[in-house]
Amino acid sequence: MTEPTIFGRILDGEIPCHRVYEDEHLLAFLDIGPLSRGHTLIIPKECVANVHELSDDAGAALGRVLPRLCEAVRQATGATAYNVLINNGQEAGQVVMHVHMHIIPRFPDAGLRKTWIPGTLDDTDAKTLVTAIGEAMAS
Amino acid sequence: MTEPTIFGRILDGEIPCHRVYEDEHLLAFLDIGPLSRGHTLIIPKECVANVHELSDDAGAALGRVLPRLCEAVRQATGATAYNVLINNGQEAGQVVMHVHMHIIPRFPDAGLRKTWIPGTLDDTDAKTLVTAIGEAMAS
Repeated sequence: MTEPTIFGRILDGEIPCHRVYEDEHLLAFLDIGPLSRGHTLIIPKECVANVHELSDDAGAALGRVLPRLCEAVRQATGATAYNVLINNGQEAGQVVMHVHMHIIPRFPDAGLRKTWIPGTLDDTDAKTLVTAIGEAMAS
Repeated sequence: MTEPTIFGRILDGEIPCHRVYEDEHLLAFLDIGPLSRGHTLIIPKECVANVHELSDDAGAALGRVLPRLCEAVRQATGATAYNVLINNGQEAGQVVMHVHMHIIPRFPDAGLRKTWIPGTLDDTDAKTLVTAIGEAMAS
């Protein structure tokens, strides 16, 4: 047994949150360290650290509610753009080790700051990756 | 009618892609301008620009396959961390106006570069937002 994360304790009702939506599979609430107004988190009730550990059903429930939550955040904040983000693993910026999806409204002066440095896709390596990912999907 | 996007043309088979997965609801393929090795895109077959325009079923299909695709990309690349990202709207960095979800493996020297500048959540404003988002979800 590992210690419950802060999100596990929110799910247990031990720590309060500003809840915006809940169903049997997930809970959505306001991020207390928002990158912009309306920054919302969606967490599955399955207590796993990583997206790749989620069940298909938990993933589906998350995806099913996402369009409606994005629309609701948009309406509530007036944001015309937003980012949806999961940081998975410490090196990718994950701080709480319970899967969480961010909805981050974008305003001229606030939101997710990122730098996009695209590389190129080598054709031979692409074939290697397609085979490896395809085999992993089939297994 | 708007012009089909490059992703619409990939779905139509008019433009090739390095396909890693496909089912009735979605297509996954390698990004040709990868931020890191194994950078993969998932696109719904519903041709809409925005997440908030997706049907519940299209959202669910995307969420359902996400854990398995993340695991497959992880296995294929050896990445221990990754980011899952949707840029929605031009101001949020969206370039192709067809919903697409990035899986971006994180390596010490490559991946999604971001700067996290958290604010604070004012209690009064939090209540306003909870009410507004909750009402939008219920409508």
